[in-house]
Amino acid sequence: MINVLFAAHPDRWESYEAPLKEAIADAGVTAFLATDIPPADVDYIVYAPNSPLQDFTPYTRAKAVLNLWAGVEKIVGNRTLKIPLTRMVDSGLSQGMCEWVTGHTLRHHLGMDAHINCAPGVWNNVAPKLAWDRKVTLLGLGELGTACAQMLAQIGFDVTGWSRTAKDIGGIRCLSGDDGLKEALTGAEIVVLLLPDTPATENTLNAETLPLLARGACIINPGRGPLIDDDALLAALDAGQIGHATLDVFRIEPLPEAHPYWHHPRVTVTPHVAAETRAKYSALTIAENIRRGEAGEPLLHVVDRKTGY
Amino acid sequence: MINVLFAAHPDRWESYEAPLKEAIADAGVTAFLATDIPPADVDYIVYAPNSPLQDFTPYTRAKAVLNLWAGVEKIVGNRTLKIPLTRMVDSGLSQGMCEWVTGHTLRHHLGMDAHINCAPGVWNNVAPKLAWDRKVTLLGLGELGTACAQMLAQIGFDVTGWSRTAKDIGGIRCLSGDDGLKEALTGAEIVVLLLPDTPATENTLNAETLPLLARGACIINPGRGPLIDDDALLAALDAGQIGHATLDVFRIEPLPEAHPYWHHPRVTVTPHVAAETRAKYSALTIAENIRRGEAGEPLLHVVDRKTGY
Repeated sequence: MINVLFAAHPDRWESYEAPLKEAIADAGVTAFLATDIPPADVDYIVYAPNSPLQDFTPYTRAKAVLNLWAGVEKIVGNRTLKIPLTRMVDSGLSQGMCEWVTGHTLRHHLGMDAHINCAPGVWNNVAPKLAWDRKVTLLGLGELGTACAQMLAQIGFDVTGWSRTAKDIGGIRCLSGDDGLKEALTGAEIVVLLLPDTPATENTLNAETLPLLARGACIINPGRGPLIDDDALLAALDAGQIGHATLDVFRIEPLPEAHPYWHHPRVTVTPHVAAETRAKYSALTIAENIRRGEAGEPLLHVVDRKTGY
Repeated sequence: MINVLFAAHPDRWESYEAPLKEAIADAGVTAFLATDIPPADVDYIVYAPNSPLQDFTPYTRAKAVLNLWAGVEKIVGNRTLKIPLTRMVDSGLSQGMCEWVTGHTLRHHLGMDAHINCAPGVWNNVAPKLAWDRKVTLLGLGELGTACAQMLAQIGFDVTGWSRTAKDIGGIRCLSGDDGLKEALTGAEIVVLLLPDTPATENTLNAETLPLLARGACIINPGRGPLIDDDALLAALDAGQIGHATLDVFRIEPLPEAHPYWHHPRVTVTPHVAAETRAKYSALTIAENIRRGEAGEPLLHVVDRKTGY
């Protein structure tokens, strides 16, 4: 019998308790799962960075912190954390991100908003060009970015992907490095941001890079708020260089009601729903890592503390 | 040298002239292509059903009518037409239809409209369930329906397809016949209509079949207007049985400004853009059939006058 502490925002317990218990049992591990266990008795910590738990010092026996989120930037620098930290990589998270990215890419590609809010009687039957002729660039080719790039390419989009280090993904034009970033952005009609939030990626879209895109390009950001220089984006929207921005993540969340993004006619705000972890599927990843830890096998998706992801 | 008459709506000549000439030359055929050729000299008729040409009697030498549209219901019953009639099946048409159907299916699946028209400050971060758990039913498994069903299944939707005669398509639950129709509609959350317009398919969605769907289901019709009993759909929308309808085709087009569909808050009208034939790609199909006709090979996509498609 091992002890697994559930240390996420308290309102998550209700949705996670049953799926986690079921998944851990299905993995063949006998465990006690609870939100309140004496620190010295805890073997694994199922964790979300917005948990009240921020000092890991008393958890002397714990073998790993298993993050429920894909993002770890709010926890990776915690100096009291000396045991392995794993990121959430679950099939449901990746699938949900692919659906959100593909849906909004198709929305902008097809010009849906004009139809959704069309005045009665306006019959402007000009069809958009095909996805084959639409240039989509994804910045970030981690698990999520790669999965999204592949789904967009399957649908037929002309997909370019960019990552800091070189990658090779079938069906995707892959670029890397600083020169590669400039090439990836030049002439792009739809740009999707799925970079991690690190000092090197802050303000990747800014007053210097936004003019590289095709005039009237759309920005889709399901990654992290700081990837965009907000003032530069608003200026580019007003100037018509950017045609629309659909943003799911922000420097401050929930996005304050007074923020210009809420009030700009060509910005769509979605409330951080693209990367939602669904308990039914993510519980399987947590359970597999507990099984591995108990069997002495290497954990999956361990965070590299040097790169920060 | 053969003579090819272009007999579509006059405003189409501008977009088709260059792609057709190029495609026919690339197919190795020497042809004179024009909008005005003495009937007795015409070898092939490139045709759209809204052309002024409705009496084929004087075209005594013509070998085939090559339709630019996928739909042939306005021409198939023409008694003066005694030579082979081919439907348009071009990769671009199919691709465009797949993009439109996949885009609007994802739009309804993700609940995008609520975000697109969100009031400032409203932060309701509940993510939808995954496509894996979303039941989508396609009625009609011809070339277009099959291609759409496959794209939706690739994305992850739980896809059921129905056709009059039994089909077998990998990754799709295929049903057929009257009992199959009832089963395909029962519990469906998104229904896509891609049936041909025949007497047997008229009002397929009606006051008896709409209640079979899941409550709040969405209807997507890129097929033909008469597939839906309009009064029954409007009543089902008002009753909440149907959550939204996105309609691209109508009994009368353009849809008159006074029609209730334009004014219903949960109906989206798109102006017959889902099945747009793009000259760049459809010219390749026309040219291939002219090449086949001249080489004595069987034409592609010949319409069966008995079934009407």
